[in-house]
Order: sequence, then C-alpha cells, then structure tokens
Amino acid sequence: MEKLKYAVVGTGAIGGFYGAKLANAGNEVHFLMHSDYDYVRQRGLRVSSCDGDFTLPEVSAYSSTEDMPKADVVLVGLKSTNQHLLRTLLPPLLHSDTLVILIQNGIGLEADVQEWFPGLALAAGLAFICSAKTDPGHIRHQCYGSINLGNYSCSNDELFQAVLRDFCLAGIDAHEVNYAEARWRKAVWNMPFNGMTVALQTQTDRLLGNPATRQLIYDQMMEVIGAANALGINNIDESFAQKMMQMTDEMVPYSPSMRLDFDFHRPMEIHYIYTRPIAEAHAAGIPMPRLQMLERELLFIDSHNH
Amino acid sequence: MEKLKYAVVGTGAIGGFYGAKLANAGNEVHFLMHSDYDYVRQRGLRVSSCDGDFTLPEVSAYSSTEDMPKADVVLVGLKSTNQHLLRTLLPPLLHSDTLVILIQNGIGLEADVQEWFPGLALAAGLAFICSAKTDPGHIRHQCYGSINLGNYSCSNDELFQAVLRDFCLAGIDAHEVNYAEARWRKAVWNMPFNGMTVALQTQTDRLLGNPATRQLIYDQMMEVIGAANALGINNIDESFAQKMMQMTDEMVPYSPSMRLDFDFHRPMEIHYIYTRPIAEAHAAGIPMPRLQMLERELLFIDSHNH
Repeated sequence: MEKLKYAVVGTGAIGGFYGAKLANAGNEVHFLMHSDYDYVRQRGLRVSSCDGDFTLPEVSAYSSTEDMPKADVVLVGLKSTNQHLLRTLLPPLLHSDTLVILIQNGIGLEADVQEWFPGLALAAGLAFICSAKTDPGHIRHQCYGSINLGNYSCSNDELFQAVLRDFCLAGIDAHEVNYAEARWRKAVWNMPFNGMTVALQTQTDRLLGNPATRQLIYDQMMEVIGAANALGINNIDESFAQKMMQMTDEMVPYSPSMRLDFDFHRPMEIHYIYTRPIAEAHAAGIPMPRLQMLERELLFIDSHNH
Repeated sequence: MEKLKYAVVGTGAIGGFYGAKLANAGNEVHFLMHSDYDYVRQRGLRVSSCDGDFTLPEVSAYSSTEDMPKADVVLVGLKSTNQHLLRTLLPPLLHSDTLVILIQNGIGLEADVQEWFPGLALAAGLAFICSAKTDPGHIRHQCYGSINLGNYSCSNDELFQAVLRDFCLAGIDAHEVNYAEARWRKAVWNMPFNGMTVALQTQTDRLLGNPATRQLIYDQMMEVIGAANALGINNIDESFAQKMMQMTDEMVPYSPSMRLDFDFHRPMEIHYIYTRPIAEAHAAGIPMPRLQMLERELLFIDSHNH
C-alpha cells in the first residue's frame, strides 16, 4: 500500500495533536483551519508535549475543504455541536475508498454521518488524552495520548490496519477495539463526569471526595452499564465502574471538556454525550433517570451560557 | 374551654407571623426569641402585612424556654436543621395536655419529635404564605397566609378544634386536613422547587419556562406522587401535579425557602425535605432517582456553603 494521504477537519486540541504527530513523522497531512488559519500559514503549528516538544514550520493549511486534495483518511476533531457542518465539509475530501475517523465524544456520531453519506467507510477514534489549544497555532499536550480505533463501517481492513500502523510509527499508542463496546465504555466515564463538573461547577476530585456525589457518580456509571448491557454489550459490568472510580481517584483534579466548554461560554456537547445515548437506552427499554436529569440541567445551563 | 395559652418556639417569618396574629387578636402568646430578644423587648414586634400592618408594642419575649410559662399550644417555627434543639427546648413548656404544632416543611418531623416525647400530642401546621423576617423585630408578610392543620397524635379533639377557632378569629384562614395526605401534597411542590432553584441558582418561572427543566420538575412531582400512593395515600394523582404546575405558572417568580437559606449561607433543610421522604419511599419499595440525585447535589452544595 502506498503512503496514505491524511486530512484533519477540526484542528483543535485533539485533531490538531494527532494530525501534527502524523505530519511530524513524515506523513502527508492537510489541515482545515478556522480561526488559526493566518497564524499557522505564517508561523506554523507548535506542539508542547509531555513526550517532547516539536514545531511544524510548514503546514499544509487551508481555510476551506474545497481547496484541499482528496484524502485516504480524514480525521474529524470537530466539536460535535458543529456536527452538521460535516455534510458540506466532507464531500470535497472523499474519494471512493476514503476512511473517515470521528475522534469525538459521544454516542450516535457515526450513525448520523452514515445516514448523510450511506456508502462512506467510518471508524470511531477514542482518544485518551489531556490536551488543550491555548493560543493560536499552539497545542499543549499535558499527558496520556493513546487512541483506540473502532471500525464502524470500513470494509477495507488493509486500509484500517495501515492507519493503525501509521499512528504507531508516529509514536502514538494506538489499538483496534470493538466499536460499540469502546464507545459505551468511554460513556461510563464521560456521562457522569462531564455533566456533573458543570452542574456543580467543580472538578473530579471534589465529586469523589464528597460521599453523596461519590455515590451519585457511581449510580450514574451503573446506569450507563445497564444501558450498554441492554444493547447487547455484555462484557462491561460493575467492576468496570469500580475501575473508573479508582482511576479517577488517582488522577489529578480534572476538568473534562464539557466543563472547559462551559467555562469559555461555548455550546456544550449535550446532544451526543447525553441525548443520544439516553434515547438509545430508552429504545431498548432502559430508563436513565439520573443522567436524563443531568441532561435537562445541562440544557437549562447551556440555554443562558453563550 | 378557657382561653388557650400559646408559646412560639422559633419566632421567624412563619412562627413569628402566626404568633403575632394570635397575640394581636387578644390571645396570650409567649415568644421564644433568639437574636431579636433585646430589640423586641425594647421596641416590640412589627408586622408589615398585605392584610394590614400592625405592631405589638409589649411582647412577652424570652431568651430561654426555662423562663416561660407552660403552654396549652406550642407553635414550632424553628428551621428543621435545628430540630434536635426541641429535645431541650420543649420540656419546660409542656403540661400533660399540651398540643405541639410543627409549622415546618418536610416529612418525618412529627415522627422524630414523637420518638423523643412518646406521650406528646402533635399536629402538623402547613403554612401557605410568603413572608420574611427582614430586620430585627420586623416581619414582612407579602401574600397568602393560610394554614392547614393535620392531626398527628392529638386525642383531645376539643383542644384541636379550639386552636382552629383561635386561628380563624385572629383572621387566619385555617382548616383541618388529613395529616399524611397534607404533608405529601405539600412535598409535591416542595421537593422539586426548593432544590432545583438552588441546584440551578434560579427561580420558579425560569425552571418552568425552559422545556427541559419543565419536564424534569413534572417528573420529580410524579416521583413524589408515586411514593405517596405506595404509602397508601391514594387521592393524589397526576392531575395534582398538573394543578401545581399551573399554580406555579401563575405565581410571581419565586425563591423558595431553601433558595433563601442558600443565598444567605444558612444550612439547608435537606434532611426533612429530601432524605426522610426518600427513605420512606424506599422502604415502601419506590425509588425516587431524580429527587435522590437532587438530594445528593444539595448535600454537595451545602457542604461548602456555610
């Protein structure tokens, strides 16, 4: 297989990081930029990373996908509140065998994109990373950095494996995982902590340090696990909730992405992180009363935050 | 029956109002005062009321129940966060036939006092009133003002009826109601609105104006109704929730007492408004997941608010 050509749509803390790593390892990567376009064209893209800093002085940056070459692999790092933009952003990038990887949080993301592009090869990218885009053209990668790829609808396994290999060669810890299981496993952590840190304007450590909210977080995790089980994902059980609690106990006090969105008065990713999984669980006959309450609190908060 | 002798324990916005109305109508009323004692001894007690202002220039005020005469009727207007104080405050006021009326919010209040004083005659006072003690010795009564009395353990019906008559003669709209039904009916409004106005730092009108929180409030009301039904209180149904929604739609934007406690950094009445009814429902096999989540959010908020 020839070297793959990459495109990054949504060059923020996540898409920007993985795209820059791939480019830094010698891959051809084309970046769609928004507010940072002029800055990056002039000064390049800088990554301050716990794994070693680097700068890409010459970045193949664009302000519109219409100007970009077609890609073999598209990495989508867009905020899911802008998901609808993919309907117009993606077509110029696609040839008949393009793989689109959604490196985003939530449930139902691939289903929607598949509905818009029925024949498209799709995969989920589940990033375990602390990073932020603090200044124009500057990504700060604090810790972690692995990515799990779950195949949603890519029948070209050779392509899928080649992407995994490119990630690994670029120094990224990347593994193939079961799509649905991986998305729901991530939801076990994401659904309680993203919303609760916003609803109570706090961080992970204080939620777990208070006995009342510690129990609530655990109950919410069990709602996610119950829903996953009802949807046929059987190898997630109570022990996974315990593991997530313990892992979070050992983390530094942490503000999840939704808390950062709230703090910076950006729209919160309520639809894919809450509304969609709650609807999927409901369709399988499983209520998620605590997480639905949290969704409604977040909708209230979001309605006057930006 | 001779004229009844009244004592008021907790001379705040509620106990102070009803006690002052009774005294103003010529009843003998003795008031336990706390921070206002010196002020009221010197300057009396002033009531600014939508039904007409009045002042009691000479108030029978005390700083300890040890100094007070025994009473036929004790009105308790204490914040339920101080409920344990009743164990020492009440004994000096009690003779063998004293009726104690708890004009407080929540579930389980009478059960606890009965456990401390097994033979005591108890009743619930359910006040429908907007009032506040804004300055020392000054109660502002904005609107409403009726009180429902529910007999919990008073076998002397002559006494119970005489109290109702005294309230009516003092210009207070007072009625006898079924104890358990009345406490749970009040909880249908209290449990959603008290906590949600704190959790989302808002008022009743905004909670009902947002479709997400409007639905949440309704679901929470239905949790209370489900619990009441499971506890054998069968004449509260969905139509009561609809009635409470409509009544609240028609009210001015309102901050319930828990929101005021939060704003003034006072402990919130979480135990009797949430923990106890949730425990009673749980014992009857009914979970209240949304209200239990709200309880836990409130415990978190309360833990660093005073």
